[in-house]
Amino acid sequence: MLTAKFDQLVKQLRVLPGVGQKSAQRMALHLLTKKRPQGMALAQALDDAMRDIVECQRCHSFSDDAVCPLCQDPRRDDGLLCVVETAADVMAIEQTAGYRGRYFVLGGHLSPIDGISADDLNIDQLVWRVKQEPVGELILATGTTVEGQTTAHFISEAVSRHVDKITRLAQGVPMGGELEYLDSMTLGQAMQNRSFL
Amino acid sequence: MLTAKFDQLVKQLRVLPGVGQKSAQRMALHLLTKKRPQGMALAQALDDAMRDIVECQRCHSFSDDAVCPLCQDPRRDDGLLCVVETAADVMAIEQTAGYRGRYFVLGGHLSPIDGISADDLNIDQLVWRVKQEPVGELILATGTTVEGQTTAHFISEAVSRHVDKITRLAQGVPMGGELEYLDSMTLGQAMQNRSFL
Repeated sequence: MLTAKFDQLVKQLRVLPGVGQKSAQRMALHLLTKKRPQGMALAQALDDAMRDIVECQRCHSFSDDAVCPLCQDPRRDDGLLCVVETAADVMAIEQTAGYRGRYFVLGGHLSPIDGISADDLNIDQLVWRVKQEPVGELILATGTTVEGQTTAHFISEAVSRHVDKITRLAQGVPMGGELEYLDSMTLGQAMQNRSFL
Repeated sequence: MLTAKFDQLVKQLRVLPGVGQKSAQRMALHLLTKKRPQGMALAQALDDAMRDIVECQRCHSFSDDAVCPLCQDPRRDDGLLCVVETAADVMAIEQTAGYRGRYFVLGGHLSPIDGISADDLNIDQLVWRVKQEPVGELILATGTTVEGQTTAHFISEAVSRHVDKITRLAQGVPMGGELEYLDSMTLGQAMQNRSFL
């Protein structure tokens, strides 16, 4: 609209999730008017991240080096392995600050409809890992979608000979949840899994 | 959280307006997981824009070259000059596709409380321009804030000897506006400036 380079920037900003034409224009104008050094720093950080961030060889999460900081950290409990679908899930669990074990990222969930089979996920590597380094407890923290649950069952079968204790995340009423707005599946689960006060 | 380069990217993404910690994380994960080439193209577009976009010598809007495409376009009407506060205003008016004259960007509005006086805006350049190249009509399209109106009056005084016709944008009920939710200032103006059906 204004200049070729401005239009190019607006177009490229729209690749960001949740950013449409209007937001992209606002972002471009904001950076150009008041934040040029910060805009250049953002360009540098983006380029660095896209080029240099790789998959951790051990847990398949994101990493700057061959093995990620979480896998390297000597203070984490090797006896506890939490299996998640994506690196975003690792981040979500880390932000709870309540888990001190290791992680393993599958890279998605089984979904025949999208053509994603066990070979497309890091399931072989997971089986290999629990064979080599037996863990005390394997936590299957895949999603509570049908695909996530199916993936959890599939893994549970595949590793059952090598792991004694296989667990999954508790299901129930979320914090701050109002019962009347909760779906009946979740409420039903919560009732079934009720615990002593 | 995950790696140093990831954290750096998240931190830098937060410079974008309306992007907080959660959105920045989502953006970074989205680009890393599915859109690395697009992420690198965005880095390039950002760097190009921050380095190369300058202020147009004639209208003070943004430009890739010394003079912007709007000032160079021979099909625009030289007799009509629209004065706006920012390049964003130029874009907003261009998107109406209803204006075919030239623009002049002040770079803000007079605001004694923020220490912005006439010397901080491009008012001298505007006066010089209308002296050198008299225009048939000067449209003062500054904001309808107190500062915007003050700026319009100030400019009107400064150029009155050189321009015959000085106009401002119509004020009234916006399209799709419900009268009951409209502020009484706007509604009062709309009533005063009523026109024949």
